[in-house]
This record gives sequence, structure tokens and C-alpha cells, in this order.
Amino acid sequence: DEPPQPNPEDPYAKDPSRHPALHVNTLKPFNAEPPVELISENYLTPSQLFFKRNHLPVPEVDPAAYRLRVQGASGKTLSLSLQDIKKKFPKHEVTAALQCAGNRRGEMNAIKNTNRLGWNVGAISNARWGGARLRDVLLKAGYKQDDEGHVCFEGLDRDQSGTVYGASIPFKKAMSPEGDVLLAYEMNGEELPRDHGFPLRVVVPGIVGARNVKWLAQITVGPEESQSHWQQKDYKGFSPSVTWDTVDFSRAPAIQDLPIQSAITEPCQNASVSPGELTVKGYAWSGGGREVIRVDVSLDGGKSWKVAKLTGEEQLPGRAWAWKLWQLNTCVPAGTKELNIVCKAVDTSYSVQPDTVKPIWNILGVLNNAWHRVRVFVEEE
Amino acid sequence: DEPPQPNPEDPYAKDPSRHPALHVNTLKPFNAEPPVELISENYLTPSQLFFKRNHLPVPEVDPAAYRLRVQGASGKTLSLSLQDIKKKFPKHEVTAALQCAGNRRGEMNAIKNTNRLGWNVGAISNARWGGARLRDVLLKAGYKQDDEGHVCFEGLDRDQSGTVYGASIPFKKAMSPEGDVLLAYEMNGEELPRDHGFPLRVVVPGIVGARNVKWLAQITVGPEESQSHWQQKDYKGFSPSVTWDTVDFSRAPAIQDLPIQSAITEPCQNASVSPGELTVKGYAWSGGGREVIRVDVSLDGGKSWKVAKLTGEEQLPGRAWAWKLWQLNTCVPAGTKELNIVCKAVDTSYSVQPDTVKPIWNILGVLNNAWHRVRVFVEEE
Ligand SMILES: [Mo]
Ligand SMILES: [Mo]
Repeated sequence: DEPPQPNPEDPYAKDPSRHPALHVNTLKPFNAEPPVELISENYLTPSQLFFKRNHLPVPEVDPAAYRLRVQGASGKTLSLSLQDIKKKFPKHEVTAALQCAGNRRGEMNAIKNTNRLGWNVGAISNARWGGARLRDVLLKAGYKQDDEGHVCFEGLDRDQSGTVYGASIPFKKAMSPEGDVLLAYEMNGEELPRDHGFPLRVVVPGIVGARNVKWLAQITVGPEESQSHWQQKDYKGFSPSVTWDTVDFSRAPAIQDLPIQSAITEPCQNASVSPGELTVKGYAWSGGGREVIRVDVSLDGGKSWKVAKLTGEEQLPGRAWAWKLWQLNTCVPAGTKELNIVCKAVDTSYSVQPDTVKPIWNILGVLNNAWHRVRVFVEEE
Repeated sequence: DEPPQPNPEDPYAKDPSRHPALHVNTLKPFNAEPPVELISENYLTPSQLFFKRNHLPVPEVDPAAYRLRVQGASGKTLSLSLQDIKKKFPKHEVTAALQCAGNRRGEMNAIKNTNRLGWNVGAISNARWGGARLRDVLLKAGYKQDDEGHVCFEGLDRDQSGTVYGASIPFKKAMSPEGDVLLAYEMNGEELPRDHGFPLRVVVPGIVGARNVKWLAQITVGPEESQSHWQQKDYKGFSPSVTWDTVDFSRAPAIQDLPIQSAITEPCQNASVSPGELTVKGYAWSGGGREVIRVDVSLDGGKSWKVAKLTGEEQLPGRAWAWKLWQLNTCVPAGTKELNIVCKAVDTSYSVQPDTVKPIWNILGVLNNAWHRVRVFVEEE
């Protein structure tokens, strides 16, 4: 059999090739996450394994012809080439995790299907980003520290009707000297890959993935949030009682900051483990620059807890944008047939994760940060 | 019988008189909370009903002789009279809730006694505070916006060995133009009452009560947190697995920012209610200036939820220091004998409360923000 030929009328025909280990949720647009067992193998997720969350086809961009439009404070629009962005602004590097609001939606779908991407625990990854500070670009465009409103981004990715991806963040976050918001052209020390926004993307540390606009085309500043579908009619949290018949999108704020999160990446769900020594591994992260200060792990479904060992680069206070990996070396009690492994994390505001998924279930299937649970079977000796 | 005569050797003999409705946890030092049914009667808690959390006897202070010592950046100490503080710095007003870290400890004690104050849901109250900005005083004392470290406070309250109450907050919070940290001399439009720190106290919006030092004697700035017992060996959070034999206080950060909280104040625990219309009321608050965006209420122990109506003054983004009151007008389903009323709140970081108390139980009995539950009986028609 011959391999399938690309269809030139397929808007996704020019999408890049991807790492074969990725678990694909949808091919068009491409949405995929790394295999669970690889997630905590690296503090910095290799770019090829970093989760991909595309809303539209990956645009083809000629870096020489690329221009970023920035609406200036005076009304005049700045047009910046890639070289302008690299040479006219100091390069700033930040280690930050990005998490999709839909991370762990699979567990929500298991309660009641949202008919949206059934992410496992891999819609979060951690990378080293390099680029210009958005703050420096906004200052160059004439904005002042005390200006207000929202900074709106548009991507070069568009559907066949011409709708482009868009999102916004508060001006205060964009302009804060401690906000570390980047216009990134590097990921893990290399040129930004096409799937991650080549040649330029926004990286908004501590804020939901959806605002980290890729293939950045345009920046505007105004009194209103982005009017895009993704800012107005998606990426918001609702009570479990809200249905598609009763939902009022104007009543919930657009997700920015995300709550404390953690997951178990080893052992895998339904794995068999040997009696005796057991290593449990995972990640933990919180939004808003809050640092993860503790991860508790239970082997008995949450009745008793042990404290895991955390690892990760030191981060500045209030600017803990990166995740932490954690590990617990423990022992499977003799006579145990099954373990119900649970993890839960705590951040610097002493915020904790809720025990169960159902009371935070919502029609969009976002914001699942319930305790993560993995059942494993203990082999007979 | 004659009333008991004050003992002049009792260090608490000069404590002020208090409102008779308060529920007293300990008399010496005085620790008391308002009756549950009064908590949500007022958006601004009347000062007499505002929870009292004293660690030591209430000092007697002559306002004319009072001086605040502020260690200056150059090493020279400023001495400020009450008039200096009122006249030399602009008066700033802030509505902020204060919450004791031990609020709702009674529910933790019911699981396993911590032998510490068994607060019900009333160790939180909301007031309008007026005073000088700490930031302005620090600037006057020669500190710069970009200085670092911690601002340490000492009170005039002391035990018989001479130990004074002390605590600290990060310099960044103290100096932030948006931190709204006050040296308050007014509470709800009147002179600060003795139980709340007359003539001057610190109000640190969004931060645990314990750092809001009353009867303020001294401010110093340094690279280390306060060395006081209350900063170093109390007001920290630990895993439920940590015991007094294994606790290592150096491993947990001092609580500053507090997590999302809510409680039901009406109906009362074990109350009888009529079938038909039912009003459920309560409060909700989150630390760090995060705004409460939603409160979910369940009548069936958490199986199904309704969204409550929130009320409260508008607050600036990231500066939501006040609590919100909430109310649900609902109906008791016919044939119901008992209701298990539950509430849980969500803040702007979409942080939620954990389902149950036991997995967050800790030896200090702090940080109980599990769903609040009230059982009521439905009268027969
Ligand atoms: Mo996302
Ligand atoms: Mo407290």
C-alpha cells in the first residue's frame, strides 16, 4: 500500500511532522500530549514532546517577510520584523510551564461527556523560553506603566472563513516588571518550532495556555478583553449545575490565573507493580507565580499521606512559573493486592486541590484539578 | 453573691469589657467570635462583634505618650506620635476582611483534637479600616521601592517574661502601591477599639490575621522574617501525616496569603426548618486580593449544586480584600426529612475548596477551608 497522499485542498496539509510517541487527541487541528511515562522524565520538556494544542492549521510563515503589528499608544502602528524584535529589545529568558485549561478533561468526560478533547494528564509541559519582554515592546509603542485595560493578541492561524485565533491578558500583567511576559522566539535554547508558534509567540507565565497566542500577528491595547470566541465563549469556569441551555458566558470571568495542580506520572493507571520498593513520580504546578510548597501522596486512596520530595530550579518569590517534579520512594505493604495512589499539592497561598472531580465538573470540561488517582495491582510474590 | 473582684496581679485585669453576645473560646487571653447567626447580618462587621484574637493581655496605652518606632534605612530610628501618623501621612481607607488561620478549627478538632482554640466559622470579620499607608511611612523612613526583605512588627502586648507579640510580612507586600497595607487608627469610622489594637495596628489586606499586629510598637526592616514564636513556630501548614514528634518548622513557609474560604451562617447546625421556602446565607472570601467569583450551594451533601447570589462592594482587580456575603433562596423538596447543606466558593484564580477536612487536618489546626456543611431537620407539615 502506498502512504496516503496529502490533499492540497486540506488546510492542514502543511502542518509539520510530529514525534511519533505523542498521543494524538485530534489530528486536524493537531492536539496531542506526551505519553504519561515520559512526562516527568525531564524537568524541561523536550520541545518535540511538549504538548501541542492547536485550534487551527499551523500557518506557514516566511521569517524574512514576517512583521508584528503593534498598535501604538498614539494610534500609529509599529511594524516590527523578527530581526527588530531580536535586536532592538533585550533578550529575556524564563522557565515556565504552560497548561491547557482542558488538562485532565478525560476524567471529567468519564463522569459526563463534554464532547471535547479528552486530555489525560499531559496537557501541561515545562520549557525554557527566550524572547523580548512584552513590557519593553509596549513601552516602545508609547504605553505607560499606569495605563489600564487589556492587551489583545491575534495569531496568524485562521480558518477558511478568515477567523483568526485571538485572546487577551490584563494590561497590568503585560506591563508588570515582575510579570515576565515574553514575545518568545526561542524554546529550550532553539528556534521556536512551528507547532509552538514560529516565528513568534506570547508566553504569559502563570496564565492558562489559551492566552499564550502562537504565530503572533498583532498586538492591540484597549479597554475591553479580546472579542474572540476563545476569550468570550470558551475557557471560562461554571458551576456543575450550569447546562448548555442555561449557560450565560457573560457571568464568568475568562480564565487567566490557574489553580494548584498535580498528577501522578509513574506508575501508570492499572499497572502491575512488584511488592516491596515502589517509586511514585509526578509533577505539580500552580498558576499566578505561586510556588508549589508540598505534595502529599497516599497509597490507600487518601486515608493516609506521605510527603514527596520536590525538585526544580529555584524561582523568584511570586514568580514561580515553572513546575516542580516530585518523587516518593516508598514500600508496598505486605499482603496488599491493589494500591489506590493519590496525589495532592499545596502552593504558597496554601491553596489545595479538591478531593473529587464531580463537584467541579463543568460543561466546558476545564479546570480539573481534583486529586489525581492511579490504581495499580500488586503482583504476587 | 458579690461579683468576682478583679485581681490586681492578674495581667488581664485591665482588659476592656466586651459585647455579651460573643462566644468566648478563651477569656485570658481573650479569644471570641460572633454568634453564627449574626455573622452575615452586616457586610461591615460591627467592631464590637468583630472576632477578637488576642495572644496576650490588652496593653493600656496613653495615646498622648504613644510613639511608634520605625527603624530607618540609614539606621536612624524615627519616632512618630499618633498625631504625626494622622497628620504627616495621607489618610487611606480600605475595606478588608481579616481571618484567623484557625478559623473553623473546631471541625478539625472533631477529627482529632489539636488542643488549640476550637473556633467555629466566626474567626473572620470584615471592616472598614482607616490609617496611614505603611508604604508612605517606609518611604519617609528612607526605604526605596526596590528594597528587599521583610518588614517586622512588634506589639506592645507582652507576657510576664517580657516576650512581645511579633510577626512580619514581605517587604514587597508592604511597599506595593497596590498592597494597601495600613497603619490603621480607625475601624468602621471610629477610633480603633482597645481589643483591635488601640491606638495603632497593622492591617495587611489579603494576609492571615496573625500578621496584622495590634498595639504596634515597632517596625524594622531586614533580610530575615520575624524571629518571633508566631512567625517561626506557629501559623504554618503541614501535611496531615506530620506529628509533634516529626514536625520541622523550618520546612514550611509562614502563612501569609490564605486560600479560598466560605461558610454557611444560616440556617444553624442542627436547626429545624419548615418545608417550603428556605433561605441559606453565608460569607466567602479569598486571600491575596483574589475576588470570590462564585458560591455553589448543595442541599443534598454535594450531589447537586445551585449558584448563590453574591453581594459586596466593588473592589479593584487584584485588590478584592473584602469578603462577599451570599444568599440562596430555595425550596425544601417535599418529603425531605433532613438536609445536608454544603457551600463551596471559587475565586479569580479558579481555586476551589477541598471536599473534606480530614485530608487537610494538621497538628496546628490551621487552614481549614474544606466545604462547609450544615445539617438541618425538616419539620413535618
Ligand atoms: Mo487550552
Ligand atoms: Mo490567628
